[in-house]
Amino acid sequence: MTRLTHFRLCPLSRSIRLALGELDIAFEMVEERAWEWPASFLTLNPAGELPVLEIQGEALLCGVYSIVEYLAENELGEAGQERRRIRMFPGTRDERAEVRRLVDWFHRKLDREVSRELMAQKVHPQVSRLASLGTTAGPAPDPSVLRAVRANMRQHLAYIDFLSEQRRWLAGEAPSFADLAAASHLSCADYLGEVPWQNHPAAKAWYSRLKSRPSFRPLLADRIPGMAPPPHYADLDF
Amino acid sequence: MTRLTHFRLCPLSRSIRLALGELDIAFEMVEERAWEWPASFLTLNPAGELPVLEIQGEALLCGVYSIVEYLAENELGEAGQERRRIRMFPGTRDERAEVRRLVDWFHRKLDREVSRELMAQKVHPQVSRLASLGTTAGPAPDPSVLRAVRANMRQHLAYIDFLSEQRRWLAGEAPSFADLAAASHLSCADYLGEVPWQNHPAAKAWYSRLKSRPSFRPLLADRIPGMAPPPHYADLDF
Repeated sequence: MTRLTHFRLCPLSRSIRLALGELDIAFEMVEERAWEWPASFLTLNPAGELPVLEIQGEALLCGVYSIVEYLAENELGEAGQERRRIRMFPGTRDERAEVRRLVDWFHRKLDREVSRELMAQKVHPQVSRLASLGTTAGPAPDPSVLRAVRANMRQHLAYIDFLSEQRRWLAGEAPSFADLAAASHLSCADYLGEVPWQNHPAAKAWYSRLKSRPSFRPLLADRIPGMAPPPHYADLDF
Repeated sequence: MTRLTHFRLCPLSRSIRLALGELDIAFEMVEERAWEWPASFLTLNPAGELPVLEIQGEALLCGVYSIVEYLAENELGEAGQERRRIRMFPGTRDERAEVRRLVDWFHRKLDREVSRELMAQKVHPQVSRLASLGTTAGPAPDPSVLRAVRANMRQHLAYIDFLSEQRRWLAGEAPSFADLAAASHLSCADYLGEVPWQNHPAAKAWYSRLKSRPSFRPLLADRIPGMAPPPHYADLDF
């Protein structure tokens, strides 16, 4: 069996859920509140970071970088690629370099400038409180942090808009892991109503195409009790 | 010609300098104070991040991830590997996954928890001041940030110590880009006297072996005016 340790609104985990979906690899999921540093999870991954992929009898893979490159190494060598709907690193050596540049952009830069703070401010305290059966509200988000995060988000969305206008998919003519990485971050922010789509029609059209893929369906079904997403979150014609 | 845009004490840039050295690829260097977001640099890499590698007539590569995987793709296919002293991702698919897990550890986790803050507190203000011919001292480092960074550094050093005790090189029996990534961060912190080697003999012995490689020599010759490194910085028998 293949088992993914993840958290519902962890963008890094979501990108691997999408990758596994696109590669037609069946997997089960275990959820961890990694930000609480549970001892059992640190035994699995001493970095204390999500996601972790266990492939029974084969490999224990920690972190997006290690996981996606491991999956992609197989992709290069195997027949039957037509069954796969999105290849992680398609094209020539140059085109793959462009995919990786953008994966780094979303999983390092956008993660640091937007997603990490957004999750730490709006999601983690609420989820920890629910888990401990707390009845008092968690700490309110810090308005100055949210202001900075929203300003950063506008910049990133403008860049995705720009790429979507220039190209069919973010890294070029073929869809790739760069699209999955970007969509994972946006999907988490979108759950929180933090994506100003109306000013970015090209980005919205690109996201809409990804959102309607079967691999996306489980993400759109995720819910956190007491934190309903906006109505457009799961709407394919948003 | 191959040109690397870097900054002397940028750990990410240093790891690519080491990689190019190990792969026997000749290159020239251009320095940028990327943290000042110069417009000409943003044209080169809109992410505003170092390093950038330009291979004339062939490729423009932004960021460590894109650069090292591009270099490594060639490494797999080519003959004459015996000329190369360190392969970036040696071994089996599993062993490469372990290399990438650790590269991510150093270039994402250690970078975020130690290096970024250390550079922002102790190096960037000083270098910007020198460049603008300023004569007043830069802002003093924030003691609470330095305390946190030093506590994190002790954890990371303990982990490197642990790996060095278990294995010949950090990711296994063969040296790899994981060693170069870790050594790059430590070398920058070491320039600032921020590596408590005395408590970590295995890590020190591992670093010592890397430090004596020819690819390391240019890093040990780097100096920032007005910020001398401690005497052991360039000493091979430190």
